[in-house]
Amino acid sequence: MAQGEQGRTASPRAPERKVSRKRQTRRAQVLEVAARMFHERGYQTTTTQEIGAELGLLKGSIYYYISSKEDLLFELIEQYHDETRGYFERIVDSDQPPVAKIRELIVTSTVHTARHISRSSLFYTEWRSLSEDRQQQILGERHRHEDALVAWIVQAQRDGEIRPDADPKLTALAVFGMVNSVYRWFRPEGPRTAEEVAEEFCALAVNGLLVR
Amino acid sequence: MAQGEQGRTASPRAPERKVSRKRQTRRAQVLEVAARMFHERGYQTTTTQEIGAELGLLKGSIYYYISSKEDLLFELIEQYHDETRGYFERIVDSDQPPVAKIRELIVTSTVHTARHISRSSLFYTEWRSLSEDRQQQILGERHRHEDALVAWIVQAQRDGEIRPDADPKLTALAVFGMVNSVYRWFRPEGPRTAEEVAEEFCALAVNGLLVR
Repeated sequence: MAQGEQGRTASPRAPERKVSRKRQTRRAQVLEVAARMFHERGYQTTTTQEIGAELGLLKGSIYYYISSKEDLLFELIEQYHDETRGYFERIVDSDQPPVAKIRELIVTSTVHTARHISRSSLFYTEWRSLSEDRQQQILGERHRHEDALVAWIVQAQRDGEIRPDADPKLTALAVFGMVNSVYRWFRPEGPRTAEEVAEEFCALAVNGLLVR
Repeated sequence: MAQGEQGRTASPRAPERKVSRKRQTRRAQVLEVAARMFHERGYQTTTTQEIGAELGLLKGSIYYYISSKEDLLFELIEQYHDETRGYFERIVDSDQPPVAKIRELIVTSTVHTARHISRSSLFYTEWRSLSEDRQQQILGERHRHEDALVAWIVQAQRDGEIRPDADPKLTALAVFGMVNSVYRWFRPEGPRTAEEVAEEFCALAVNGLLVR
């Protein structure tokens, strides 16, 4: 009791913080369930009511945690994107030769896709359900990633490491296409780990690029 | 007049045939418009009413041409599949060494995907909107194609042509992932032809597979 009152006196916002922490935990659960339901049943056919019901929330009270279904989708895609941006910038800034950067990009992004099947599936299949502004924002980010890979390929061609006949842009699209497709079939309980898939994909693409 | 009556006497089913031909043409238009609208706006958010309206059909009369929206989606996916099956069986039956079959598969399926953006997008993104039975039918077909590619890779490894360390199953998934991703970005009015993209993708994958 004394403890509680002391606590309250020392920090009048403590109960509020507690509520806020509880709200944050609940919010993370809402995002988790939404990712799974959008992935399994499709964004268009899943309602916020159903997401709330899955978590035992009373009708309408899901709006205490989110403002709209589209915001929910955008936040999920943004979370995925933030992580992608994180490792991408780390590789861009690293002090490696371009082929090593290409290898690291393929391995890291394949593992990332395989580890976040629901979110990556949303990222690739449902982003067109977002508003035009938000689609453009995501497209812009994708183009920056493509441009970075294209630049590494061009640089490695100048260094004489990558086949001079490879078209850097088409090759970058092929590599991303391959890596991104993992969400379609990868299952954590399957016979291969995310790392094994990543090494195999990396070997195929890098062998395909290097000068013979 | 006499001509008409004579016609009717000689072949009592002629007008019926004419109606049927007109119906077939109209039906093909319905499929075309549905493919485009499902692709642009998503299957779930497009109604059969809207497809009919786009063609100037009176409310409900689209059901003269189709029985349900799901049938329409299934028919579009099946059309795409029939074509895929066609070239796949031709390559399987051809008298070529396995690496040549792999090359032909990559080139032909990349060109096919690029030439049919709407249908291939439906094939890859909307097939989960189909009934469980139909999904299984499509999955079965996909697995047959994967198995054929895996078998060619294994055979080429035995012949000493493909890297012995390549995992045939993962490599097949990587190749299909790459090829299938073309529908995401290819535009007929873009700077590259479908054939140029196909040759580039083929070079990357085949160089990635061959023994050095």
